[in-house]
Amino acid sequence: MNAIEKLNKKNQEGKFICIGLDTDINKLPACVKGKANPVLEFNKAIIDKCSGHAAAYKLNFAFYERGGYKGLQTLEDTIALIPEDIMIIADAKRGDIGNTSQMYAEAILSKMNFDSITVNPYMGEDSIAPFIKIPDKLIFILALTSNSGASDFEKMKLGNGLYLYQLVIEKVNQWNTNNNCGIVFGATKPEELYQNMKRIGELPVLLPGVGAQGGSMEDVLKTFKEFKRKDFLINVSRGIIYKSNGTDYAEAALAELVSLNEYARQLLND
Amino acid sequence: MNAIEKLNKKNQEGKFICIGLDTDINKLPACVKGKANPVLEFNKAIIDKCSGHAAAYKLNFAFYERGGYKGLQTLEDTIALIPEDIMIIADAKRGDIGNTSQMYAEAILSKMNFDSITVNPYMGEDSIAPFIKIPDKLIFILALTSNSGASDFEKMKLGNGLYLYQLVIEKVNQWNTNNNCGIVFGATKPEELYQNMKRIGELPVLLPGVGAQGGSMEDVLKTFKEFKRKDFLINVSRGIIYKSNGTDYAEAALAELVSLNEYARQLLND
Repeated sequence: MNAIEKLNKKNQEGKFICIGLDTDINKLPACVKGKANPVLEFNKAIIDKCSGHAAAYKLNFAFYERGGYKGLQTLEDTIALIPEDIMIIADAKRGDIGNTSQMYAEAILSKMNFDSITVNPYMGEDSIAPFIKIPDKLIFILALTSNSGASDFEKMKLGNGLYLYQLVIEKVNQWNTNNNCGIVFGATKPEELYQNMKRIGELPVLLPGVGAQGGSMEDVLKTFKEFKRKDFLINVSRGIIYKSNGTDYAEAALAELVSLNEYARQLLND
Repeated sequence: MNAIEKLNKKNQEGKFICIGLDTDINKLPACVKGKANPVLEFNKAIIDKCSGHAAAYKLNFAFYERGGYKGLQTLEDTIALIPEDIMIIADAKRGDIGNTSQMYAEAILSKMNFDSITVNPYMGEDSIAPFIKIPDKLIFILALTSNSGASDFEKMKLGNGLYLYQLVIEKVNQWNTNNNCGIVFGATKPEELYQNMKRIGELPVLLPGVGAQGGSMEDVLKTFKEFKRKDFLINVSRGIIYKSNGTDYAEAALAELVSLNEYARQLLND
Protein backbone atom coordinates (compact mmCIF):
# COMPACT_ATOMS: atom_id res chain seq x y z
CA MET A 1 0.00 0.00 0.00
CA ASN A 2 1.20 3.49 -0.68
CA ALA A 3 0.89 6.24 1.91
CA ILE A 4 -2.49 7.57 0.81
CA GLU A 5 -3.94 4.05 0.70
CA LYS A 6 -2.77 3.46 4.25
CA LEU A 7 -4.44 6.68 5.37
CA ASN A 8 -7.67 5.91 3.48
CA LYS A 9 -7.90 2.46 5.00
CA LYS A 10 -7.46 3.70 8.55
CA ASN A 11 -9.99 6.50 8.04
CA GLN A 12 -12.46 3.94 6.65
CA GLU A 13 -11.94 1.85 9.78
CA GLY A 14 -12.94 4.87 11.85
CA LYS A 15 -9.40 5.71 12.95
CA PHE A 16 -8.52 9.39 12.81
CA ILE A 17 -6.00 9.89 15.60
CA CYS A 18 -2.31 10.05 14.76
CA ILE A 19 -0.08 9.27 17.72
CA GLY A 20 2.74 11.77 18.07
CA LEU A 21 5.74 9.84 19.33
CA ASP A 22 7.39 13.00 20.63
CA THR A 23 9.12 11.05 23.32
CA ASP A 24 10.93 13.29 25.77
CA ILE A 25 13.46 11.46 27.91
CA ASN A 26 12.71 13.87 30.76
CA LYS A 27 9.02 12.99 30.84
CA LEU A 28 9.21 9.20 30.87
CA PRO A 29 7.61 7.14 33.62
CA ALA A 30 10.00 6.00 36.34
CA CYS A 31 9.47 2.36 35.36
CA VAL A 32 11.38 2.72 32.07
CA LYS A 33 14.12 5.03 33.27
CA GLY A 34 16.51 2.26 34.28
CA LYS A 35 16.29 0.47 30.92
CA ALA A 36 19.19 0.34 28.44
CA ASN A 37 17.31 2.61 26.01
CA PRO A 38 14.36 4.15 27.89
CA VAL A 39 12.98 6.02 24.85
CA LEU A 40 12.97 2.90 22.69
CA GLU A 41 11.48 0.81 25.51
CA PHE A 42 8.72 3.40 25.97
CA ASN A 43 8.03 3.68 22.23
CA LYS A 44 7.90 -0.10 21.84
CA ALA A 45 5.33 -0.46 24.61
CA ILE A 46 3.16 2.29 23.11
CA ILE A 47 3.42 0.81 19.59
CA ASP A 48 2.72 -2.75 20.74
CA LYS A 49 -0.32 -1.63 22.68
CA CYS A 50 -1.78 1.02 20.38
CA SER A 51 -1.17 -0.11 16.80
CA GLY A 52 -4.56 -1.76 16.42
CA HIS A 53 -6.21 1.63 16.90
CA ALA A 54 -3.72 4.18 15.56
CA ALA A 55 -4.51 5.96 12.29
CA ALA A 56 -0.82 6.85 11.92
CA TYR A 57 2.34 7.60 13.88
CA LYS A 58 4.20 10.88 13.68
CA LEU A 59 7.77 11.14 14.92
CA ASN A 60 9.10 14.59 15.63
CA PHE A 61 12.78 14.56 14.68
CA ALA A 62 13.74 17.16 17.29
CA PHE A 63 13.03 14.77 20.16
CA TYR A 64 15.42 12.21 18.65
CA GLU A 65 18.08 14.58 17.34
CA ARG A 66 18.47 15.82 20.89
CA GLY A 67 20.18 12.52 21.63
CA GLY A 68 22.67 13.05 18.80
CA TYR A 69 23.41 10.15 16.49
CA LYS A 70 22.26 7.70 19.15
CA GLY A 71 18.93 9.50 19.19
CA LEU A 72 18.65 9.10 15.44
CA GLN A 73 19.43 5.40 15.88
CA THR A 74 16.54 5.19 18.35
CA LEU A 75 14.32 6.88 15.76
CA GLU A 76 15.30 4.30 13.13
CA ASP A 77 14.83 1.45 15.61
CA THR A 78 11.40 2.84 16.55
CA ILE A 79 10.04 3.01 13.01
CA ALA A 80 11.16 -0.57 12.44
CA LEU A 81 8.69 -1.60 15.19
CA ILE A 82 5.64 -0.06 13.51
CA PRO A 83 3.39 -2.42 11.52
CA GLU A 84 3.63 -2.06 7.74
CA ASP A 85 -0.01 -1.03 7.26
CA ILE A 86 0.26 2.10 9.41
CA MET A 87 1.51 5.33 7.89
CA ILE A 88 4.60 6.79 9.58
CA ILE A 89 5.12 10.53 9.29
CA ALA A 90 8.53 12.16 9.67
CA ASP A 91 7.76 15.46 11.34
CA ALA A 92 10.95 17.05 10.11
CA LYS A 93 9.73 20.29 8.48
CA ARG A 94 12.49 20.15 5.88
CA GLY A 95 12.93 22.38 2.85
CA ASP A 96 16.11 23.57 1.15
CA ILE A 97 17.54 24.26 -2.30
CA GLY A 98 16.85 21.51 -4.82
CA ASN A 99 19.98 19.36 -4.46
CA THR A 100 19.70 19.49 -0.67
CA SER A 101 15.98 18.70 -0.54
CA GLN A 102 16.83 15.79 -2.82
CA MET A 103 19.23 14.51 -0.14
CA TYR A 104 16.59 14.90 2.57
CA ALA A 105 14.04 13.08 0.43
CA GLU A 106 16.48 10.21 -0.11
CA ALA A 107 17.44 10.12 3.57
CA ILE A 108 14.01 10.25 5.11
CA LEU A 109 11.61 8.83 2.53
CA SER A 110 13.83 6.29 0.77
CA LYS A 111 16.53 5.13 3.19
CA MET A 112 14.64 5.50 6.47
CA ASN A 113 11.49 4.52 4.57
CA PHE A 114 9.04 6.94 6.17
CA ASP A 115 5.69 7.02 4.36
CA SER A 116 5.33 10.73 4.79
CA ILE A 117 7.14 13.91 5.78
CA THR A 118 6.25 17.45 6.80
CA VAL A 119 7.96 20.13 4.69
CA ASN A 120 8.27 23.90 5.00
CA PRO A 121 7.21 25.87 1.89
CA TYR A 122 9.13 29.11 2.52
CA MET A 123 11.80 28.40 -0.14
CA GLY A 124 9.25 27.57 -2.85
CA GLU A 125 8.64 24.95 -5.48
CA ASP A 126 12.12 23.56 -6.11
CA SER A 127 12.57 23.04 -2.37
CA ILE A 128 9.49 20.79 -2.33
CA ALA A 129 9.72 19.11 -5.73
CA PRO A 130 12.22 16.39 -4.71
CA PHE A 131 9.76 15.17 -2.07
CA ILE A 132 6.60 15.19 -4.16
CA LYS A 133 8.21 13.49 -7.10
CA ILE A 134 8.19 10.24 -5.08
CA PRO A 135 4.64 9.17 -5.93
CA ASP A 136 3.96 6.58 -3.23
CA LYS A 137 4.69 8.95 -0.33
CA LEU A 138 2.48 11.63 1.22
CA ILE A 139 4.01 15.07 1.61
CA PHE A 140 2.40 17.38 4.18
CA ILE A 141 3.29 20.99 3.43
CA LEU A 142 2.96 23.56 6.22
CA ALA A 143 0.07 25.91 5.57
CA LEU A 144 -1.29 27.53 8.77
CA THR A 145 0.52 26.19 11.80
CA SER A 146 -0.82 25.79 15.33
CA ASN A 147 1.55 28.19 17.09
CA SER A 148 1.20 31.89 17.95
CA GLY A 149 3.97 32.84 15.49
CA ALA A 150 1.63 31.86 12.65
CA SER A 151 0.49 35.51 12.65
CA ASP A 152 3.96 36.86 11.89
CA PHE A 153 4.20 35.64 8.29
CA GLU A 154 1.67 32.90 7.50
CA LYS A 155 -1.21 35.26 8.24
CA MET A 156 0.24 38.26 6.46
CA LYS A 157 -2.05 39.58 3.77
CA LEU A 158 -0.54 39.61 0.29
CA GLY A 159 -1.00 42.25 -2.36
CA ASN A 160 -3.35 39.87 -4.20
CA GLY A 161 -5.72 39.74 -1.23
CA LEU A 162 -4.79 36.26 -0.04
CA TYR A 163 -3.05 35.46 3.19
CA LEU A 164 0.34 33.83 2.66
CA TYR A 165 -0.92 30.48 3.97
CA GLN A 166 -3.82 30.63 1.49
CA LEU A 167 -1.38 31.13 -1.37
CA VAL A 168 0.57 28.13 -0.08
CA ILE A 169 -2.60 26.01 -0.19
CA GLU A 170 -3.34 27.15 -3.75
CA LYS A 171 0.22 26.41 -4.88
CA VAL A 172 0.12 22.97 -3.24
CA ASN A 173 -3.02 22.18 -5.22
CA GLN A 174 -1.18 23.23 -8.41
CA TRP A 175 1.88 21.15 -7.57
CA ASN A 176 -0.17 18.08 -6.66
CA THR A 177 0.12 16.30 -10.01
CA ASN A 178 1.07 13.01 -8.29
CA ASN A 179 -1.88 13.21 -5.87
CA ASN A 180 0.52 12.85 -2.99
CA CYS A 181 0.41 16.29 -1.38
CA GLY A 182 -1.31 17.24 1.83
CA ILE A 183 -1.20 20.23 4.15
CA VAL A 184 -0.57 20.89 7.82
CA PHE A 185 -3.28 23.03 9.37
CA GLY A 186 -3.26 23.81 13.10
CA ALA A 187 -6.28 22.55 15.04
CA THR A 188 -5.91 25.75 17.07
CA LYS A 189 -7.24 27.71 14.07
CA PRO A 190 -10.76 26.24 13.57
CA GLU A 191 -12.32 29.35 12.01
CA GLU A 192 -9.61 29.62 9.38
CA LEU A 193 -9.96 25.90 8.72
CA TYR A 194 -13.67 26.26 8.12
CA GLN A 195 -13.23 29.26 5.85
CA ASN A 196 -10.58 27.51 3.76
CA MET A 197 -12.15 24.08 3.23
CA LYS A 198 -13.01 24.80 -0.40
CA ARG A 199 -9.53 26.10 -1.06
CA ILE A 200 -8.07 22.97 0.57
CA GLY A 201 -10.20 20.83 -1.73
CA GLU A 202 -9.26 17.16 -1.61
CA LEU A 203 -5.83 17.60 -0.04
CA PRO A 204 -5.25 15.34 2.97
CA VAL A 205 -4.94 17.40 6.14
CA LEU A 206 -2.68 16.79 9.13
CA LEU A 207 -4.03 18.65 12.15
CA PRO A 208 -1.65 19.16 15.08
CA GLY A 209 -2.39 21.29 18.12
CA VAL A 210 -5.16 19.38 19.87
CA GLY A 211 -4.62 19.08 23.62
CA ALA A 212 -1.58 20.77 25.14
CA GLN A 213 -1.67 23.51 22.48
CA GLY A 214 -5.38 24.23 22.99
CA GLY A 215 -6.95 22.99 19.76
CA SER A 216 -10.45 21.52 19.94
CA MET A 217 -11.28 18.22 18.25
CA GLU A 218 -14.94 19.12 18.22
CA ASP A 219 -14.48 22.28 16.15
CA VAL A 220 -12.25 20.54 13.65
CA LEU A 221 -14.46 17.49 13.25
CA LYS A 222 -17.63 19.53 12.75
CA THR A 223 -15.92 21.15 9.80
CA PHE A 224 -14.80 17.86 8.28
CA LYS A 225 -18.30 16.49 8.75
CA GLU A 226 -19.99 19.47 7.11
CA PHE A 227 -17.69 19.29 4.09
CA LYS A 228 -17.98 15.47 3.92
CA ARG A 229 -14.21 15.15 3.97
CA LYS A 230 -12.14 12.11 4.91
CA ASP A 231 -8.34 11.87 4.52
CA PHE A 232 -7.41 13.70 7.66
CA LEU A 233 -5.40 13.02 10.77
CA ILE A 234 -5.69 14.64 14.16
CA ASN A 235 -2.33 14.42 15.84
CA VAL A 236 -2.20 13.97 19.58
CA SER A 237 1.16 13.61 21.26
CA ARG A 238 1.40 14.53 24.93
CA GLY A 239 -2.31 13.85 25.53
CA ILE A 240 -1.86 10.18 24.66
CA ILE A 241 1.69 9.10 25.41
CA TYR A 242 1.90 10.82 28.79
CA LYS A 243 -1.67 10.01 29.86
CA SER A 244 -0.31 8.02 32.78
CA ASN A 245 3.06 8.34 34.43
CA GLY A 246 2.82 4.89 36.04
CA THR A 247 3.55 1.35 34.93
CA ASP A 248 0.20 1.42 33.08
CA TYR A 249 1.39 4.14 30.68
CA ALA A 250 0.81 2.02 27.55
CA GLU A 251 -2.64 0.85 28.68
CA ALA A 252 -3.55 4.43 29.54
CA ALA A 253 -2.35 5.59 26.12
CA LEU A 254 -4.47 2.94 24.43
CA ALA A 255 -7.54 3.83 26.47
CA GLU A 256 -7.15 7.50 25.57
CA LEU A 257 -6.59 6.66 21.89
CA VAL A 258 -9.68 4.46 21.77
CA SER A 259 -11.71 7.14 23.51
CA LEU A 260 -10.52 9.89 21.12
CA ASN A 261 -11.26 7.77 18.04
CA GLU A 262 -14.69 6.97 19.43
CA TYR A 263 -15.34 10.65 20.12
CA ALA A 264 -14.26 11.49 16.57
CA ARG A 265 -16.59 8.86 15.08
CA GLN A 266 -19.50 10.16 17.15
CA LEU A 267 -18.94 13.72 16.01
CA LEU A 268 -18.59 12.66 12.37
CA ASN A 269 -21.73 10.49 12.47
CA ASP A 270 -23.95 12.72 14.58
CA MET B 1 34.98 33.66 21.98
CA ASN B 2 31.33 33.74 21.11
CA ALA B 3 30.13 33.20 17.56
CA ILE B 4 30.08 36.84 16.49
CA GLU B 5 33.57 37.40 17.91
CA LYS B 6 34.84 34.44 15.89
CA LEU B 7 33.29 35.88 12.73
CA ASN B 8 34.64 39.39 13.44
CA LYS B 9 38.14 38.08 13.99
CA LYS B 10 38.20 36.10 10.75
CA ASN B 11 36.80 39.03 8.76
CA GLN B 12 39.47 41.29 10.29
CA GLU B 13 42.11 38.80 9.16
CA GLY B 14 40.80 39.15 5.61
CA LYS B 15 38.96 35.81 5.60
CA PHE B 16 35.47 35.90 4.10
CA ILE B 17 34.99 32.44 2.59
CA CYS B 18 32.98 29.86 4.49
CA ILE B 19 33.72 26.30 3.42
CA GLY B 20 30.56 24.31 2.87
CA LEU B 21 31.32 20.77 3.99
CA ASP B 22 28.46 19.35 1.92
CA THR B 23 30.30 16.11 1.50
CA ASP B 24 28.55 13.79 -0.92
CA ILE B 25 29.74 10.19 -0.70
CA ASN B 26 29.10 9.82 -4.44
CA LYS B 27 31.46 12.66 -5.35
CA LEU B 28 34.51 11.71 -3.32
CA PRO B 29 37.90 11.18 -4.96
CA ALA B 30 38.79 7.54 -5.59
CA CYS B 31 41.68 7.74 -3.12
CA VAL B 32 39.37 7.95 -0.08
CA LYS B 33 36.70 5.54 -1.24
CA GLY B 34 38.34 2.47 0.31
CA LYS B 35 38.70 4.06 3.77
CA ALA B 36 36.68 2.92 6.78
CA ASN B 37 34.74 6.22 6.79
CA PRO B 38 35.40 7.99 3.48
CA VAL B 39 33.35 11.11 4.35
CA LEU B 40 35.17 11.61 7.65
CA GLU B 41 38.56 10.95 6.03
CA PHE B 42 37.76 13.52 3.31
CA ASN B 43 36.47 16.11 5.80
CA LYS B 44 39.52 15.66 8.04
CA ALA B 45 41.92 16.26 5.15
CA ILE B 46 40.03 19.39 4.09
CA ILE B 47 39.88 20.71 7.66
CA ASP B 48 43.55 19.98 8.39
CA LYS B 49 44.62 21.71 5.22
CA CYS B 50 42.23 24.66 5.06
CA SER B 51 41.61 25.79 8.65
CA GLY B 52 44.31 28.46 8.57
CA HIS B 53 42.38 30.27 5.85
CA ALA B 54 38.71 29.43 6.44
CA ALA B 55 36.41 32.15 7.75
CA ALA B 56 33.95 29.47 8.91
CA TYR B 57 32.68 25.99 8.14
CA LYS B 58 29.08 25.21 7.26
CA LEU B 59 27.78 21.65 7.45
CA ASN B 60 24.62 20.89 5.57
CA PHE B 61 22.70 18.33 7.65
CA ALA B 62 21.09 16.69 4.60
CA PHE B 63 24.40 15.30 3.41
CA TYR B 64 24.95 13.59 6.76
CA GLU B 65 21.37 12.55 7.50
CA ARG B 66 21.45 10.63 4.25
CA GLY B 67 23.71 8.15 6.01
CA GLY B 68 21.16 7.67 8.82
CA TYR B 69 22.43 7.68 12.39
CA LYS B 70 25.90 6.75 11.19
CA GLY B 71 25.87 9.85 9.02
CA LEU B 72 24.97 11.96 12.04
CA GLN B 73 27.85 10.35 13.91
CA THR B 74 30.16 11.40 11.07
CA LEU B 75 28.79 14.94 11.39
CA GLU B 76 29.54 14.97 15.12
CA ASP B 77 33.01 13.49 14.53
CA THR B 78 33.67 16.12 11.85
CA ILE B 79 32.84 19.13 13.99
CA ALA B 80 35.11 17.78 16.72
CA LEU B 81 38.01 18.18 14.25
CA ILE B 82 37.45 21.90 13.63
CA PRO B 83 39.65 24.32 15.59
CA GLU B 84 37.91 26.19 18.41
CA ASP B 85 38.45 29.65 16.92
CA ILE B 86 36.51 28.94 13.72
CA MET B 87 32.74 29.35 13.66
CA ILE B 88 30.83 26.20 12.70
CA ILE B 89 27.39 26.69 11.15
CA ALA B 90 24.72 23.97 11.25
CA ASP B 91 22.92 24.42 7.95
CA ALA B 92 19.80 22.73 9.21
CA LYS B 93 17.05 25.27 8.34
CA ARG B 94 15.05 24.32 11.41
CA GLY B 95 11.92 25.98 12.74
CA ASP B 96 8.95 24.48 14.57
CA ILE B 97 6.52 25.24 17.39
CA GLY B 98 8.18 26.57 20.53
CA ASN B 99 8.75 23.36 22.51
CA THR B 100 10.12 21.64 19.41
CA SER B 101 12.42 24.49 18.38
CA GLN B 102 13.64 24.40 21.97
CA MET B 103 14.63 20.74 21.44
CA TYR B 104 16.42 21.59 18.19
CA ALA B 105 18.27 24.45 19.89
CA GLU B 106 19.38 22.12 22.68
CA ALA B 107 20.37 19.38 20.23
CA ILE B 108 22.30 21.46 17.74
CA LEU B 109 23.57 24.51 19.62
CA SER B 110 24.08 23.08 23.09
CA LYS B 111 24.77 19.35 22.81
CA MET B 112 26.46 19.26 19.38
CA ASN B 113 27.93 22.68 20.26
CA PHE B 114 27.55 24.34 16.87
CA ASP B 115 28.27 28.08 17.02
CA SER B 116 25.53 28.91 14.60
CA ILE B 117 22.47 27.53 12.83
CA THR B 118 20.29 28.45 9.87
CA VAL B 119 16.58 28.68 10.70
CA ASN B 120 13.43 29.02 8.60
CA PRO B 121 11.16 31.92 9.60
CA TYR B 122 7.86 30.66 8.11
CA MET B 123 6.34 29.71 11.49
CA GLY B 124 7.16 33.07 13.08
CA GLU B 125 8.64 34.42 16.28
CA ASP B 126 8.05 31.59 18.75
CA SER B 127 9.65 29.15 16.30
CA ILE B 128 12.84 31.22 16.34
CA ALA B 129 12.90 32.48 19.94
CA PRO B 130 14.45 29.31 21.46
CA PHE B 131 17.47 29.71 19.19
CA ILE B 132 18.06 33.44 19.64
CA LYS B 133 17.72 33.30 23.40
CA ILE B 134 21.15 31.61 23.52
CA PRO B 135 23.26 34.77 23.46
CA ASP B 136 26.67 33.41 22.47
CA LYS B 137 25.43 31.76 19.26
CA LEU B 138 24.72 33.31 15.87
CA ILE B 139 21.35 32.53 14.31
CA PHE B 140 21.07 32.99 10.54
CA ILE B 141 17.41 33.37 9.55
CA LEU B 142 16.45 32.71 5.93
CA ALA B 143 15.50 35.94 4.15
CA LEU B 144 15.90 35.71 0.37
CA THR B 145 17.33 32.35 -0.64
CA SER B 146 19.51 31.54 -3.64
CA ASN B 147 17.12 29.12 -5.39
CA SER B 148 14.54 29.72 -8.11
CA GLY B 149 11.67 28.90 -5.72
CA ALA B 150 12.46 32.13 -3.86
CA SER B 151 9.95 33.80 -6.18
CA ASP B 152 7.05 31.61 -5.04
CA PHE B 153 6.66 33.05 -1.54
CA GLU B 154 9.73 35.00 -0.41
CA LYS B 155 9.29 37.48 -3.24
CA MET B 156 5.53 37.81 -2.93
CA LYS B 157 4.47 41.39 -2.37
CA LEU B 158 2.54 41.97 0.85
CA GLY B 159 -0.40 44.28 1.33
CA ASN B 160 1.91 46.71 3.17
CA GLY B 161 4.11 47.08 0.08
CA LEU B 162 7.01 44.98 1.33
CA TYR B 163 8.08 41.68 -0.12
CA LEU B 164 7.79 38.83 2.36
CA TYR B 165 11.59 38.51 2.65
CA GLN B 166 11.81 42.22 3.45
CA LEU B 167 9.31 41.81 6.26
CA VAL B 168 11.41 38.91 7.55
CA ILE B 169 14.49 41.16 7.60
CA GLU B 170 12.59 43.87 9.47
CA LYS B 171 11.26 41.37 12.02
CA VAL B 172 14.74 39.90 12.52
CA ASN B 173 16.03 43.37 13.33
CA GLN B 174 13.22 43.74 15.90
CA TRP B 175 13.93 40.34 17.46
CA ASN B 176 17.67 40.94 17.62
CA THR B 177 17.82 42.08 21.23
CA ASN B 178 20.75 39.75 21.97
CA ASN B 179 22.73 40.97 18.94
CA ASN B 180 23.03 37.39 17.77
CA CYS B 181 20.82 37.32 14.68
CA GLY B 182 21.93 37.28 11.08
CA ILE B 183 20.25 36.57 7.78
CA VAL B 184 20.75 34.25 4.82
CA PHE B 185 20.71 36.13 1.52
CA GLY B 186 21.39 34.33 -1.75
CA ALA B 187 24.44 35.55 -3.68
CA THR B 188 22.35 34.83 -6.80
CA LYS B 189 20.22 37.89 -5.97
CA PRO B 190 22.77 40.77 -6.10
CA GLU B 191 20.32 43.50 -7.07
CA GLU B 192 17.98 42.70 -4.22
CA LEU B 193 20.96 42.58 -1.88
CA TYR B 194 22.05 46.05 -2.95
CA GLN B 195 18.55 47.47 -2.61
CA ASN B 196 18.10 46.03 0.88
CA MET B 197 21.42 46.89 2.52
CA LYS B 198 19.91 49.68 4.62
CA ARG B 199 17.09 47.38 5.71
CA ILE B 200 19.63 44.69 6.63
CA GLY B 201 21.51 47.23 8.74
CA GLU B 202 24.18 45.65 10.91
CA LEU B 203 22.90 42.07 10.71
CA PRO B 204 25.61 39.55 9.78
CA VAL B 205 24.91 38.04 6.36
CA LEU B 206 25.52 34.49 5.19
CA LEU B 207 25.65 34.39 1.39
CA PRO B 208 25.25 31.00 -0.27
CA GLY B 209 24.91 30.47 -4.01
CA VAL B 210 28.33 31.45 -5.37
CA GLY B 211 29.68 28.98 -7.90
CA ALA B 212 27.52 26.02 -8.89
CA GLN B 213 24.35 28.04 -8.29
CA GLY B 214 25.52 30.97 -10.40
CA GLY B 215 26.05 33.73 -7.82
CA SER B 216 28.84 36.23 -8.44
CA MET B 217 31.33 37.13 -5.71
CA GLU B 218 32.13 40.35 -7.48
CA ASP B 219 28.57 41.70 -7.36
CA VAL B 220 28.17 40.82 -3.72
CA LEU B 221 31.48 42.23 -2.61
CA LYS B 222 30.99 45.53 -4.44
CA THR B 223 27.85 46.00 -2.39
CA PHE B 224 29.55 45.19 0.91
CA LYS B 225 32.35 47.58 -0.01
CA GLU B 226 30.04 50.43 -0.90
CA PHE B 227 28.11 50.07 2.35
CA LYS B 228 31.33 49.65 4.37
CA ARG B 229 30.00 46.42 5.85
CA LYS B 230 31.94 43.60 7.45
CA ASP B 231 30.37 40.61 9.27
CA PHE B 232 29.57 38.54 6.23
CA LEU B 233 30.40 35.12 4.92
CA ILE B 234 30.41 33.91 1.35
CA ASN B 235 29.74 30.21 1.38
CA VAL B 236 31.41 28.04 -1.24
CA SER B 237 30.86 24.29 -1.13
CA ARG B 238 31.34 22.36 -4.37
CA GLY B 239 33.72 24.99 -5.82
CA ILE B 240 36.23 24.32 -3.04
CA ILE B 241 35.87 20.78 -1.79
CA TYR B 242 35.58 19.17 -5.22
CA LYS B 243 38.17 21.41 -6.91
CA SER B 244 40.28 18.34 -7.62
CA ASN B 245 39.16 14.76 -7.86
CA GLY B 246 42.68 13.41 -7.39
CA THR B 247 44.91 12.68 -4.40
CA ASP B 248 45.65 16.42 -4.23
CA TYR B 249 42.01 17.26 -3.37
CA ALA B 250 42.87 18.94 -0.05
CA GLU B 251 45.73 20.98 -1.55
CA ALA B 252 43.49 22.01 -4.43
CA ALA B 253 40.76 23.03 -1.96
CA LEU B 254 43.26 25.14 -0.02
CA ALA B 255 44.58 26.79 -3.19
CA GLU B 256 41.04 27.69 -4.25
CA LEU B 257 40.16 28.98 -0.78
CA VAL B 258 43.29 31.16 -0.65
CA SER B 259 42.55 32.46 -4.12
CA LEU B 260 38.92 33.29 -3.30
CA ASN B 261 39.89 35.10 -0.08
CA GLU B 262 42.53 37.04 -1.98
CA TYR B 263 40.01 37.96 -4.66
CA ALA B 264 37.58 39.10 -1.97
CA ARG B 265 40.20 41.27 -0.29
CA GLN B 266 41.15 42.86 -3.62
CA LEU B 267 37.53 43.71 -4.41
CA LEU B 268 36.96 45.12 -0.92
CA ASN B 269 40.14 47.25 -1.02
CA ASP B 270 40.02 48.43 -4.63
